[in-house]
Formats: sequence, C-alpha cells, structure tokens
Amino acid sequence: MNSLSEKLKAKIRDVENFPKPGITFKDITPVLSDSKLCRDITEELLSRYKDENLDAIVGVESRGFLFGMLLAYELNIPFVPVRKSGKLPFRTLKHSYDLEYGSASMEIHVDALQNNWNVLIHDDLLATGGTAAAAGALVEQLGAKVQSFSFLIDLTFLNGKDVLKNYTTKINSLVQY
Amino acid sequence: MNSLSEKLKAKIRDVENFPKPGITFKDITPVLSDSKLCRDITEELLSRYKDENLDAIVGVESRGFLFGMLLAYELNIPFVPVRKSGKLPFRTLKHSYDLEYGSASMEIHVDALQNNWNVLIHDDLLATGGTAAAAGALVEQLGAKVQSFSFLIDLTFLNGKDVLKNYTTKINSLVQY
Repeated sequence: MNSLSEKLKAKIRDVENFPKPGITFKDITPVLSDSKLCRDITEELLSRYKDENLDAIVGVESRGFLFGMLLAYELNIPFVPVRKSGKLPFRTLKHSYDLEYGSASMEIHVDALQNNWNVLIHDDLLATGGTAAAAGALVEQLGAKVQSFSFLIDLTFLNGKDVLKNYTTKINSLVQY
Repeated sequence: MNSLSEKLKAKIRDVENFPKPGITFKDITPVLSDSKLCRDITEELLSRYKDENLDAIVGVESRGFLFGMLLAYELNIPFVPVRKSGKLPFRTLKHSYDLEYGSASMEIHVDALQNNWNVLIHDDLLATGGTAAAAGALVEQLGAKVQSFSFLIDLTFLNGKDVLKNYTTKINSLVQY
C-alpha cells in the first residue's frame, strides 16, 4: 500500500446507514478539508495521466466535479460534466441504466466532445459501476474514446470494474476497500 | 468592461425556456471547455482573494464545486461543500428558505468549519440570492464569518445582492447581466 492510499484511508470517514439502512457511506469531505492531501491527490493523478495525451476530462455529477475539474485545470484540457437527467440545459444525449430498484439516466451535452477525442472519466467512487458505464456509453455515442476511468475509491467487493471493461481496461483508483 | 468579462460573455450560452418556460438559463459548459479561459478565471479569483486571509472556501452544490475547488486548491485552504438536503452523509445543520413556489433546504456538515474562520462562499450564479443566503446562514451558525461572496455571474436585475448584505458587503462577480 502506498503512502497516499494510507493517508486517504485515514481521512475517509465511514458513515453507517447512509443513504439507507445497511449501507456504509465513504465520506470524502474530511479529505476536501485537508488542502495538503488534496494537492497530493492532484499530483498523483497528474503523474498518472500527464503523458496519456488526453483531450478532455469527463466528471460525473457531483463529487466527480471536484478532482475532475482540478485534473482538467492542471492538464490544460476541457472539463465536461455528465449529469443526472434534467440538469444540463442544452441539447443532450441520454443513457439509462438499471438500479437495484428502478432505473436512472445520465446526460451529456451533444457538443461536449469532439470525434476521436481521448477522454478520461472521473468520479469519486466506483461501486457497482452503473453510473460510470453510463458515462462511458455517452462518451462513445459522441464518437470519442474512453481512454481511462479514474476514481478516488474503488469498493472492489462490488466488482464495478467488470462492467467497465467494455470501454477500457485502464481503470484506476487511489484507494481500494 | 474588462477583457475577462468580455471573454466570459462570449462563451456563456443562453438557453431559452430552461429549466422552465420563460426562463433564460446561463449555460457555463462552454466556459468549462475552454481551458485557457478557466485558467484566466482562476487567476483573477486568486488575485482578488489571495491577500484576504481566507480560512476556507464554501462551494454551493453543484456548479459551485468547480471554481470553488480550484480556488481552495490554489489558496491551499479547505474546500467545504454546501449541499441540498439529504446529500451530505454526516451530521448536518440545515437552513430552509422560500422559493417562488414552495421551499428548499441547504445543509452543511457540523464539523466543516471552525469558530471565527473567515470564509468565502462561491457559486456560479447569483440570481435571487436565496441559496447563497442559506449558505451564509449556515456558515454563521457554525460560528464562522462570511468574508466574501463570489460568483461567476450576477443577474443584477434580480437584486440578489440585497439579501446577501446582512452577511457581508463584499459581493463580487466576474460577469453582470
């Protein structure tokens, strides 16, 4: 285990029974309050991705906006939001996916990515992978390529990577549980 | 009008009848796709706030997370999210406020700010000011001080500044309509 992973685990807070009974939520707000750690995270992400010729960072609403925007800023490339249905104002593509009960939809603006762009998709947490896979589908529908998925946290026992392998095998996280 | 304001106005996209008929929405996603402009914005915010002895940036969900996080990162101070009710996992303070029809609530984690901290509250857009004022109330309830409000855009015809003056007179924006 590297030292950044240990530092992150020391800050990430378990909140029991959120958002519903039986779920333990990984709360990253203590990480956001540690500016030195935020800088370490950003530098680690930069070292991983600076030579990957990325054309854009896609950040998933809403915690994926945080380090997604920082990474886009440091790489001097566009930041593109993927949001829950009904939040993006311009014309969108929509991708629906199944949840344990019911379904959800994510959207991207139709003009957000250019053909053949290499894109990194970032979110704070990989759980079952449904949301990240929806983002991957949207990126491909716009003619771009999913170069990598990047997460702060991977809940590996939920096997989220399995549903993302159709898009790319480059699926990285800073902390695994 | 300064040049940054002009550049921003050239990128901000008007979307008619969003989120409901009769409303013209200011879409900042073309700004996020312009990495040079994002850097100019961040540098302007830094020049305004680097000597203000800020202890934390409070960013309002969810577009306030974008430049709020960048500003906290560049100032090396904590980033604290204020979110809609039910989104923050740990113990929260809640502040409810009236909307045109009905009401809304914003929350902050009870341990997010320390007593007497100088805080900047950031969001992308100032409209009627209800959400920003709720964030101001939450900051004060935690014993901290609202040093400044910072917005990318101020819809001045909605007089949002009037409801924020109880917290601070330092209310700034990069673009005014």
